[in-house]
Amino acid sequence: MAVGACYPKGFSAGVAVCGMKRSGKADLALLASDRPASAAGVFTTNRVVAAPVTVSRAQIQAGAARAIVTNSGSANACTGARGRDDAWAMVQAAAGALGIPPSQVLVASTGVIGQPLPIDDVVAGIGRAADAMAGTHGRQAANAIRTTDRFAKLAQTSVELPGGRVRIGGIAKGAGMIRPDMATTLAHLTMDAEVPPATLRRMLRQASAASFNAISVDGCTSTNDCVFVLANGASGVAADGPRVVRLLTEALEELMLDLAKQVVRDGEGSTRVCVWTVSGALTGPEARVAARGVAENVLVKCALHGGDPNWGRILAALGAAGVHLDPDRVAVDLGGVPVVRHGAGVSGSAADARSALTADEVAVDIALGIGAGSATVIASDLSPDYVHFNSSSTS
Amino acid sequence: MAVGACYPKGFSAGVAVCGMKRSGKADLALLASDRPASAAGVFTTNRVVAAPVTVSRAQIQAGAARAIVTNSGSANACTGARGRDDAWAMVQAAAGALGIPPSQVLVASTGVIGQPLPIDDVVAGIGRAADAMAGTHGRQAANAIRTTDRFAKLAQTSVELPGGRVRIGGIAKGAGMIRPDMATTLAHLTMDAEVPPATLRRMLRQASAASFNAISVDGCTSTNDCVFVLANGASGVAADGPRVVRLLTEALEELMLDLAKQVVRDGEGSTRVCVWTVSGALTGPEARVAARGVAENVLVKCALHGGDPNWGRILAALGAAGVHLDPDRVAVDLGGVPVVRHGAGVSGSAADARSALTADEVAVDIALGIGAGSATVIASDLSPDYVHFNSSSTS
Repeated sequence: MAVGACYPKGFSAGVAVCGMKRSGKADLALLASDRPASAAGVFTTNRVVAAPVTVSRAQIQAGAARAIVTNSGSANACTGARGRDDAWAMVQAAAGALGIPPSQVLVASTGVIGQPLPIDDVVAGIGRAADAMAGTHGRQAANAIRTTDRFAKLAQTSVELPGGRVRIGGIAKGAGMIRPDMATTLAHLTMDAEVPPATLRRMLRQASAASFNAISVDGCTSTNDCVFVLANGASGVAADGPRVVRLLTEALEELMLDLAKQVVRDGEGSTRVCVWTVSGALTGPEARVAARGVAENVLVKCALHGGDPNWGRILAALGAAGVHLDPDRVAVDLGGVPVVRHGAGVSGSAADARSALTADEVAVDIALGIGAGSATVIASDLSPDYVHFNSSSTS
Repeated sequence: MAVGACYPKGFSAGVAVCGMKRSGKADLALLASDRPASAAGVFTTNRVVAAPVTVSRAQIQAGAARAIVTNSGSANACTGARGRDDAWAMVQAAAGALGIPPSQVLVASTGVIGQPLPIDDVVAGIGRAADAMAGTHGRQAANAIRTTDRFAKLAQTSVELPGGRVRIGGIAKGAGMIRPDMATTLAHLTMDAEVPPATLRRMLRQASAASFNAISVDGCTSTNDCVFVLANGASGVAADGPRVVRLLTEALEELMLDLAKQVVRDGEGSTRVCVWTVSGALTGPEARVAARGVAENVLVKCALHGGDPNWGRILAALGAAGVHLDPDRVAVDLGGVPVVRHGAGVSGSAADARSALTADEVAVDIALGIGAGSATVIASDLSPDYVHFNSSSTS
């Protein structure tokens, strides 16, 4: 089946086993377009970046790429000059195997920080993956970039534009369990619309804001995060004019939000997804800071895990967020149940709120009542399992 | 024995049971000087503040106070107008019982946010505590302000000044276990030196920076944090001149650091204290931001709990701290073992680092190599127990 990043026309994938996963499963994915494509990317904001991030940032400047080569099992981060050589070697190997210029290849890695790649095995694997390219390998590719994700993350959709139907697809990896150092997030998105690079960059930035940039498992940014999008025009439909671009951006954002929620749902030890919306903040950015402050507060996340409608912790987290706040105006609804009004508890609300918190996905709406800024953050809870997995040894 | 906050001359304490602790133990402490005293305080930076914080902030403006009344079991936070009335009622009751003006009384609360105080029981308890005042009740007072702390936190010291010996004492409460909402930190400090209020304020601010403001259990500031210091001059020794003030400040800081470390050691579920020192940052404030960023990083805290020398997470946390950083210059020593040089792992260091991490207290030294800024943060690890306790229900 043509699914995930292979759903749009002209995209295929191949995978290989290079021996970086103890399970012996595929740990290398090659994703390619059968024709030139526009490309855009967003990268981790961490100041310590893995070698593949440095390489792909340079590669993507030109706004064009036809292939993405990704390994899991080792992040190729903090590996010095050797790491950069290895990332370039992956690019060269993919370009050679696919018969395209090296400038058309992006590279990504995910896994343990600080361990060098078994580069000879990786290069050999790239050759095997290139030999196995097929449009039916979307799920294989999603599996190959998993580290300890409980499930593969892929999504596909289509959107009817004035010029015809366009397909969009994508794969992502989340924060898995057991091997704890894999909390890096990668996503590879594809579409068969024809989109100029500058437009594609704007689309990706906008669609990222409300999806991958709005999620949190543990508030830790990684050295390897990157989201790539390739648009190859195979549908023959061009993204012309603001209205078409808007429709396409909305479809991309919806697909990315789907993938982003899959990542949160699969957060290490996660048992619950919480959608935090702060409204009535002084500004939009302050709403975002407040929403992140609450969503990432360790005590709030523990209460959420326990299904405990502990609104006192939410207020304390809001107060610590560093945004403008009038505590006497704050209102909080947990799963639609009003629990705080005018900064104090709504008496008799505890039982209803506790019941609302039994759902797998819970909306918490916080109204600050001082402005028009709003923002949403999607986050997991914090469970003892998260700590267990992340306390276990790397070696 | 005259210990803790009753160690300096002229200070006494009394406690009472008001029924706010399920255990039936004392939950109210009255601490008083037998003569007028200078007073200073530092308060939570949270914008949501409990009623007693609002009241004590107003009271301490004058720079004089003779008594501190504290209850545990309920934070009297987010309790609206009733909460403020209750805090003032505690002040009035303590003043009446001790026969001093209400303007001379500070008030503090610690416990669950959002529950109103059983104020009649608290007022009655204040009367009983006043009847029981004695200079030998320092440990009783330290116990009465505990919530679920595993041990009482008290310290005392003396310092020889040119004018004679001065005593300093203090009690604090930490983040206890089991009842999880108690992550509020209070500290009451006393000394029998004679110190003008303005000098005392400066001393407290300075001594707080490297003690209570340098610790972290979970990175969550509370609605109730406050540290008070009273100086009653009962020793007959005045803090005159910069040299004497410096000696006294150093002694106060040492005592506060002792108490602060007790708080971290007793952090909920804590099994290890980690002293994070960042040096070579561009500025002092950046060093502090970097040290906090690493010390409070959830993945780093998990690794510390597991005794896992996972320096990759430390570098990723540094990179996310938002400070100036040249990854290729970073050096990290774990418990004295060099694990990172020039931003990459020191090969063969894992076994030694793992062994160093078995200690109860571990120093991690991070050198950024780009400036002269340095800072230290003392933090606990993150254990599954922390999450267990903080996931359990409030009701």
